[in-house]
Amino acid sequence: MSRLGIIAGGGALPVALAAADPAAHCVAFAGAEVALPEAQVERHRLERLGALFDALRAAGVSRVVMAGAMSRPDLDHSALDPVMLSLMPRLAQAMQGGDDGLLRLVIALFEEQGFTVIGAHELLPDLTAEPGLLVGDQVTETTRGDIQRGRAILDALAPVDVGQGCVVADGLCLGVETLQGTDALLDFVAATPVDLRGERRGVLIKRPKAGQDLRVDMPAIGPDTARRAACAGLEGIAIAAGGVVLLDRSELLTTLRDHGLFLLAEP
Amino acid sequence: MSRLGIIAGGGALPVALAAADPAAHCVAFAGAEVALPEAQVERHRLERLGALFDALRAAGVSRVVMAGAMSRPDLDHSALDPVMLSLMPRLAQAMQGGDDGLLRLVIALFEEQGFTVIGAHELLPDLTAEPGLLVGDQVTETTRGDIQRGRAILDALAPVDVGQGCVVADGLCLGVETLQGTDALLDFVAATPVDLRGERRGVLIKRPKAGQDLRVDMPAIGPDTARRAACAGLEGIAIAAGGVVLLDRSELLTTLRDHGLFLLAEP
Repeated sequence: MSRLGIIAGGGALPVALAAADPAAHCVAFAGAEVALPEAQVERHRLERLGALFDALRAAGVSRVVMAGAMSRPDLDHSALDPVMLSLMPRLAQAMQGGDDGLLRLVIALFEEQGFTVIGAHELLPDLTAEPGLLVGDQVTETTRGDIQRGRAILDALAPVDVGQGCVVADGLCLGVETLQGTDALLDFVAATPVDLRGERRGVLIKRPKAGQDLRVDMPAIGPDTARRAACAGLEGIAIAAGGVVLLDRSELLTTLRDHGLFLLAEP
Repeated sequence: MSRLGIIAGGGALPVALAAADPAAHCVAFAGAEVALPEAQVERHRLERLGALFDALRAAGVSRVVMAGAMSRPDLDHSALDPVMLSLMPRLAQAMQGGDDGLLRLVIALFEEQGFTVIGAHELLPDLTAEPGLLVGDQVTETTRGDIQRGRAILDALAPVDVGQGCVVADGLCLGVETLQGTDALLDFVAATPVDLRGERRGVLIKRPKAGQDLRVDMPAIGPDTARRAACAGLEGIAIAAGGVVLLDRSELLTTLRDHGLFLLAEP
């Protein structure tokens, strides 16, 4: 009676959750790219959220976890069920803001329907990092200064609901993560003209927004992040201990090591 | 005896200033790209700032204006003159922060040498915009909401000395201007995958940082900004009245009109 429901988006996280709890009931929205076998996933339309709630209850689900990248929905307004129709004013308001507002609303909706919403990091504690230097030998004082500056930039942006990441090199901000995500940020940094950047390398600082609900949209890094960070000429990645998902952990750490990048987790 | 000195960087602004005051004495740092005829420009090495101060005084200059884009210097430490050597501790500290700290120091150095530092907008009041809708017929409520959100994002970033611009579309932040400048920001927005962006257009919000000294590094937009904003699918540009330089004003306004973009200047 306390079966887990996985609302799956893209990437490796839903796969890891499903593997850890074979009895879990996996659902995904129509059109969402999901790395789980399609036979294992029950598809639902976002326009018919009422039907999703009913189906989860019918499957004995009382706890749900949302995991994986989801793009913003384009709703077909002609197909809305009564539950979604009644939610439209709240949805429309939440859509005007950043991602956090929308995700907080999604959590509230599930809770109002009687579900307990759990964070992926609570189900898989090994997903995140303990404090310390996970890869690399040392971090210089200059680099620690860049990390502090990156944290100050992210803290400044948290109240306006922007930015889970930024890149700082010798005190200069080379990029702030926006809707396009970490990969796009790193590609942008990689394209910085050398006459602006000089010999500066820099650090990717990746943390949840201050006050962010970790039950949805936890920041994540994976092997591809490490490869792009190397392409962008960075010297390492600084994350929040316990607050950033490490996707494909062992491949991630190996990739960082192979490229000579550090990974530092700070409280 | 109150001759104007123009410390020229790249772009159209130094050219406009030199045209407005034919008696002005133009200098530029070695290696800087300047759109003025080279015969009109006296070159100086940043490593020998003492010589620059002496040369300006010898030319009868008492007021200086800094204008145009300048990239961060890579100093040849073996070539520093005594003035620069004595300044190194302050320079090194300022280089750790954002651009504003460095530029505030540069202003202070000229003032300590007895020069009056003037803003380009004080010499050429027509450079900036009066409040109002300069191009376009109207701005929708949704767009006004995006502009407000953009201003809130820039205000949040001002204390950490980042960001003279950002792009917001239907409440979503599509990019924050960093070291690479407005053109790079707009190209980044143009590359946003359609599955993330949907049909959203968006606005470039461009303003000085709160508390920024307008005597150096005033934000600027020009015809190229307008073309890139159009390529990025934006519906318009919102600037600070009196606080953003309009480069090649008449071509800028024509380009905006030709591409169907609005230009709104707000107090």
